[in-house]
Amino acid sequence: MHVHVNAATSADGKLSSRRREQVKISGSDDFARVDEVRAASDAVLVGVGTVLADDPHLTLDDSSLIDARESRGESPHPARVVADSRARTPTDARILDDEATTYVLVSEDAPETRCESLEAAGAAVVVAGEERVSFPAAFDALESHGVERLMVEGGGEVIFSLFAAELVDELTLYVGSMIIGGRDAPTLADGEGFVEEFPRLSLQSVERVDDGVLLTYTC
Amino acid sequence: MHVHVNAATSADGKLSSRRREQVKISGSDDFARVDEVRAASDAVLVGVGTVLADDPHLTLDDSSLIDARESRGESPHPARVVADSRARTPTDARILDDEATTYVLVSEDAPETRCESLEAAGAAVVVAGEERVSFPAAFDALESHGVERLMVEGGGEVIFSLFAAELVDELTLYVGSMIIGGRDAPTLADGEGFVEEFPRLSLQSVERVDDGVLLTYTC
Repeated sequence: MHVHVNAATSADGKLSSRRREQVKISGSDDFARVDEVRAASDAVLVGVGTVLADDPHLTLDDSSLIDARESRGESPHPARVVADSRARTPTDARILDDEATTYVLVSEDAPETRCESLEAAGAAVVVAGEERVSFPAAFDALESHGVERLMVEGGGEVIFSLFAAELVDELTLYVGSMIIGGRDAPTLADGEGFVEEFPRLSLQSVERVDDGVLLTYTC
Repeated sequence: MHVHVNAATSADGKLSSRRREQVKISGSDDFARVDEVRAASDAVLVGVGTVLADDPHLTLDDSSLIDARESRGESPHPARVVADSRARTPTDARILDDEATTYVLVSEDAPETRCESLEAAGAAVVVAGEERVSFPAAFDALESHGVERLMVEGGGEVIFSLFAAELVDELTLYVGSMIIGGRDAPTLADGEGFVEEFPRLSLQSVERVDDGVLLTYTC
């Protein structure tokens, strides 16, 4: 499986403000690029924190991208995946609408009643890991459902976990020309943090987009 | 006064690991560039957190830069400035050696005995602000000592305060090709963080340096 992390941060590395409210970091050119990356993916993953904070759809905006997928014999939208160890995704979350398949990755500790509610709301629940989602096992399960190209859209806890598990193949990072600040604001990679060995990236391209810069790395 | 913030972060915006230990983020080309920015400055500012964590000299490494300053009739090294509201700088800190003038910016709340110890150790103590250093007042005082070009090397608390006070004129940011991670690791701009109005930067240039990228912004 090819795992592609895509995110937009301020120049100081923040995904949003300390209030976890969405901040418009990039512009229309970068939005269009993100839509294209989504359209080229079999599934799009976010953490439950992102679902609770932003309630995203994760579907495609551009109808020509939907048409192109359908003409290739694919579903109109990529599947949606939530990393949600304790099955906290609300049953009325937008990602549980009927637009696309939605997988909820949970741990064995997730309350069974929550998992049943999510399944009743249309989610495909995937159990992987004891207390927290085990990404290697969860990704194996997704692969068995045909997910070969996975896009990851955040947040910082999921992205850190994927780097820690050495599962990231590619990172595209839009760095917006602004400062968000805040020692408690979410960053591209949160979690515990690395302290001795730091994952090295290989910078493949640097491109000015909107009023910021798009950095493409392989991992 | 022209205030130039210079920093190196990982791709996820971290200045160092959660342990506050220095991480080698950039390479020899960027080190040489930083030395040149220092050499072109009248003074170099850091926060006391950086002094306590790294104990930097903040003097120039390259003797040709020292010679050039002296041939211009300047001191061999720029002055050093510590933002230190409570006068916690250790009297045996490297920045208090005899290589250059050192200003310690304190608030009115700083214990008088600590200020006296710092003066006895050779520092010029500047009192500005009640509980925390007031940067506008402190910078006026530095200007009266001839500091027209101030370089700021961190950490994230000082840099956030300077953006909040709208005192930053220029930001050069080296983004290293690595992930440090950690929700508690220091970032380029920490502090309380902005929540509604975010300082906008103007991206002036994008340059590949070492294995990362150097972003130059005006503010």
